[in-house]
Amino acid sequence: HYCGKKCVGCLFDYETPVMLVISSKRVGAVFRLIQMLIIAYVIVYECWIQQNYQETDSVVSSVSTKVKGTAVTNTSVLGVHVWDVAEYIIPPQGENSFFVLTNMIVTPAQMQSRCPEVPGPTTVCLSDSDCRSGYSNVRGSGVQTGLCVNYSASVKTCEVLSWCPLENDTEIPEPALLEAAEDFTVLIKNSIHYPKFKFRKQNILPHINSTYLKNCTFNRKTDPECPIFRMGDMLEEAGEDFRNMAVKGGAMGILLDWTCDLDMKEQLCVPKYTFSRLDNKNSESDAAHGYNFRYAKYFKNSENTETRTLVKAYGIRFDVIVFGKAGKFSTVQAIIHIGATLSFLSLVNAVCDWFVLNFMEKKNYYKKHKFIHLDKMEDTDALVTMIFLKQAFRLHNIICSFTANFAEVLMLMLLLRCF
Amino acid sequence: HYCGKKCVGCLFDYETPVMLVISSKRVGAVFRLIQMLIIAYVIVYECWIQQNYQETDSVVSSVSTKVKGTAVTNTSVLGVHVWDVAEYIIPPQGENSFFVLTNMIVTPAQMQSRCPEVPGPTTVCLSDSDCRSGYSNVRGSGVQTGLCVNYSASVKTCEVLSWCPLENDTEIPEPALLEAAEDFTVLIKNSIHYPKFKFRKQNILPHINSTYLKNCTFNRKTDPECPIFRMGDMLEEAGEDFRNMAVKGGAMGILLDWTCDLDMKEQLCVPKYTFSRLDNKNSESDAAHGYNFRYAKYFKNSENTETRTLVKAYGIRFDVIVFGKAGKFSTVQAIIHIGATLSFLSLVNAVCDWFVLNFMEKKNYYKKHKFIHLDKMEDTDALVTMIFLKQAFRLHNIICSFTANFAEVLMLMLLLRCF
Amino acid sequence: HYCGKKCVGCLFDYETPVMLVISSKRVGAVFRLIQMLIIAYVIVYECWIQQNYQETDSVVSSVSTKVKGTAVTNTSVLGVHVWDVAEYIIPPQGENSFFVLTNMIVTPAQMQSRCPEVPGPTTVCLSDSDCRSGYSNVRGSGVQTGLCVNYSASVKTCEVLSWCPLENDTEIPEPALLEAAEDFTVLIKNSIHYPKFKFRKQNILPHINSTYLKNCTFNRKTDPECPIFRMGDMLEEAGEDFRNMAVKGGAMGILLDWTCDLDMKEQLCVPKYTFSRLDNKNSESDAAHGYNFRYAKYFKNSENTETRTLVKAYGIRFDVIVFGKAGKFSTVQAIIHIGATLSFLSLVNAVCDWFVLNFMEKKNYYKKHKFIHLDKMEDTDALVTMIFLKQAFRLHNIICSFTANFAEVLMLMLLLRCF
Repeated sequence: HYCGKKCVGCLFDYETPVMLVISSKRVGAVFRLIQMLIIAYVIVYECWIQQNYQETDSVVSSVSTKVKGTAVTNTSVLGVHVWDVAEYIIPPQGENSFFVLTNMIVTPAQMQSRCPEVPGPTTVCLSDSDCRSGYSNVRGSGVQTGLCVNYSASVKTCEVLSWCPLENDTEIPEPALLEAAEDFTVLIKNSIHYPKFKFRKQNILPHINSTYLKNCTFNRKTDPECPIFRMGDMLEEAGEDFRNMAVKGGAMGILLDWTCDLDMKEQLCVPKYTFSRLDNKNSESDAAHGYNFRYAKYFKNSENTETRTLVKAYGIRFDVIVFGKAGKFSTVQAIIHIGATLSFLSLVNAVCDWFVLNFMEKKNYYKKHKFIHLDKMEDTDALVTMIFLKQAFRLHNIICSFTANFAEVLMLMLLLRCF
Repeated sequence: HYCGKKCVGCLFDYETPVMLVISSKRVGAVFRLIQMLIIAYVIVYECWIQQNYQETDSVVSSVSTKVKGTAVTNTSVLGVHVWDVAEYIIPPQGENSFFVLTNMIVTPAQMQSRCPEVPGPTTVCLSDSDCRSGYSNVRGSGVQTGLCVNYSASVKTCEVLSWCPLENDTEIPEPALLEAAEDFTVLIKNSIHYPKFKFRKQNILPHINSTYLKNCTFNRKTDPECPIFRMGDMLEEAGEDFRNMAVKGGAMGILLDWTCDLDMKEQLCVPKYTFSRLDNKNSESDAAHGYNFRYAKYFKNSENTETRTLVKAYGIRFDVIVFGKAGKFSTVQAIIHIGATLSFLSLVNAVCDWFVLNFMEKKNYYKKHKFIHLDKMEDTDALVTMIFLKQAFRLHNIICSFTANFAEVLMLMLLLRCF
Repeated sequence: HYCGKKCVGCLFDYETPVMLVISSKRVGAVFRLIQMLIIAYVIVYECWIQQNYQETDSVVSSVSTKVKGTAVTNTSVLGVHVWDVAEYIIPPQGENSFFVLTNMIVTPAQMQSRCPEVPGPTTVCLSDSDCRSGYSNVRGSGVQTGLCVNYSASVKTCEVLSWCPLENDTEIPEPALLEAAEDFTVLIKNSIHYPKFKFRKQNILPHINSTYLKNCTFNRKTDPECPIFRMGDMLEEAGEDFRNMAVKGGAMGILLDWTCDLDMKEQLCVPKYTFSRLDNKNSESDAAHGYNFRYAKYFKNSENTETRTLVKAYGIRFDVIVFGKAGKFSTVQAIIHIGATLSFLSLVNAVCDWFVLNFMEKKNYYKKHKFIHLDKMEDTDALVTMIFLKQAFRLHNIICSFTANFAEVLMLMLLLRCF
């Protein structure tokens, strides 16, 4: 009965720390200065620049691309040949990544048969004993038949079973055959989605009409919103030379940065285009230089035998990389950041106390008033220490469970304090 | 020696603030009310709803898809033609993204030759002087020969070197030729990985057997776990009309949301399928409408000349977008959030103090007891102020280094306090 | 005037809590112990292990791959046939994901015509009435003509309009035809970018020269930096048997982990390669087992009719999955984490107070000194309570607006306290 009454009473007890007020201009000024610095830091840096009060979400994106342009080549193998989109974009579909053919080595009329290997350190032979029948070198062109035959008048190489005649890619055409690809354009359609904020947008902004879209070309100054990019312009912005890169190929990144502050107007959320070379052009390792792959067109001749035209395609692969983070005001995030900064306000007190109690002339006078010393109680008894250590260990366990289950304990503490 | 003893003594000094207890029902009630609100907020919102005590990881995913179904078309160009998976899925492999052909413009028997351009604002001409030999318009179909020839009885256009006859894509077949694609189905296999938690799972759940998988179709109500989706159903869920979208094509997103609470049972971690159109169907810009691309099949005729069948393929591109965040209890995260909220509990005191000391009748009485005023020390001397400002500046520098190197300083402080 | 002077005076008032110093070895030891534990936790766990003081960024990556190797098959359909890269890599281009053909079912010389369905539960028929003209089963091979014809001497099936003869994929070649793919190698070129830190790097490290790159093969012990991987080695590391997996195909992940601590030297930021099977090999559902797709090569015969060679391609799809987080020291992150931990230091006081005031022998003595009790003021008047509740409600609203707009209010509070 008594406890109950006491408990109810304590529920309405309000505890507030007793404060010592030191009216010193020195101490006060330092205190206010530090306080102001921290508050200014919170407002300027955390809120204004870093926007730490915002919850963020990563972009989910869908890209489609469409290249336009034609080029003409005049080679001994193909004669005069006009290249259109269906031929130089491989594979034909325009997704996040598209490849524009700029140079090639064409080997027409290949058939399954036998022919001498292209000379190289592992393929040159002197007699049949240097070749192993059925052996297939992982860096070779086919399966060895075991014979050593003339590649040219002076060189003998192992004969292989393969698509013959073999491709000879030692000489790359220079300048690149499809240098005219510099003038090709690509339309990039990109729609993005921030699932957490249910926000959708397209890079073709609502005010862009079809007439404008048919004639515009992206230009950072005059047409910064046009989603049609000229190949040559993109490479120039990235600091690359198209004619140079076209010879051996390479990888380019078209980066769309959709970083948005969704607390602002929706119209301000627009993509920022940047271009950069993705592969390392100054690579010392020749083997890993440029970008190329092989593909073949298959035909059947009049005797119903399969023949093919092998193309070693050099070109530029464009990767459309969409990234970005959207931020929106979030109570939780705001609390975390303000909470963390508040803790620093309490640090101000610690710093000022340290200053006042150690460096001021009147430090002993202040100390006398700030600290109320109770008589020292000596507990030297060993047994008592033992008991204490046990309690400390128990306490330590309680602390550990605190971190896991804090809120529960907090309520308990409130009740316990009453008893 | 003296210092050492003093220091050891101070190590065991426990400092606790002296508190003023105000036993007022008013103040106490306000205090408890605010305290309860904050604790309730922590428990309900941060822990239960937002699960801020969890560490999160983003999903790493692998997708493969397999489409089934056949359709028949009857056109003047191709005659009666049955389309199967190998023909209408381009490219043939089923990855994150697959394209289903729904409509097309076929231009058969193209060869490298000369023919008049398709009439348009930049291609119509009156005489040869309107055409430039060797000029290749980026939006044209080939390289101009410099001649102006009859396209039809009434219209003359510049002659171009290209794959001729040129494609005429002004009229799109309507209704779409492969409307039957509505009944096609796609099996989506998706395995995910949360690297931080070493958690792996598949969308084909362990209890799904092969008999069920051979016959089921996804239905949000009756078969929500079947990973086989009918094209028409997906578009219907997204609020789109298949027959309408099939004409000009479009982009659809199949979204798999793997958001999981890994503190719960593993069985509860299942993907949530949603479907939505990715491109903007109400786009005002016609040029950017729909989804299409061109591809060609290459043949050699009896004279060994290359001919090709060009197809402008309209269709629906399905992007399988896998996203999600998994959360698991993390001590660090819990500490950050509880720490931040604790700071707010200290705010309660600040608020109550403000209330008590400004709005209560007995405010002056409380103030007198809460604050102990030391005599004011006037430091008006200019020299002293100078010295002080220097010290303040030094102190400011110390504070700055604090933020960078706090833990170190904290230990120092503990030692310094003893001297 | 008076107010102004008072306010200026109060600006230089420094308030510091009055502390009660208890010089008890017991209490002091507990206090220091807990304090040390928390500081140790901060330093060891949060700073050293978790590096919570760092700001993080996710990787943006570009991958290109190049496979090398040849294999020979000897089948009744194709005869002796050598497979090279241009033939067994489908599609030909090496991006994030590439497919290596290991097994196949070839159906040559298909033409658009009529033929009996492959027997199955839904295709077997007894008479024409079992077949529906124009009906196209989504799991069938074509459009039914309405006739029931002999598939073999004993079985009748519905006739379909399709690419005939139909593929019969009931028997998969075993062992796999291109088992030799075990010796194929793949060169992976990967360049990454951490946009937030403007950090770029390639997996081909600067010190790797072209001679080494031409001859090396990745080996976790002897060549851990070589970016050329043997197919068989990758599967072995993942605990899979190549010969087994080659029959029905599968999906493999080549994981590049670019997790980096950018506060360290750049040379230490290297990719960590791991390999793992992505699909579930122990799947009970046969329908979803392995990895395969169909593609076709189109030809025109002497009568200008289209024929095709259909290939059901079984193989291993390799997904190059690049992930990683880079961390760099960030003042903001450091403050958040130190702030959160500081709050726990204040918790130490709360815990020690609870211990001292409840479990110590001298607890009443301590209490007497710690708490200064003001006379209880009874406010039992109902009207007063009403007024109070209104004020409490108003206060509650103020608190709510606090969370949204805290910094502003904090400054107000500083001014208000002066009046």
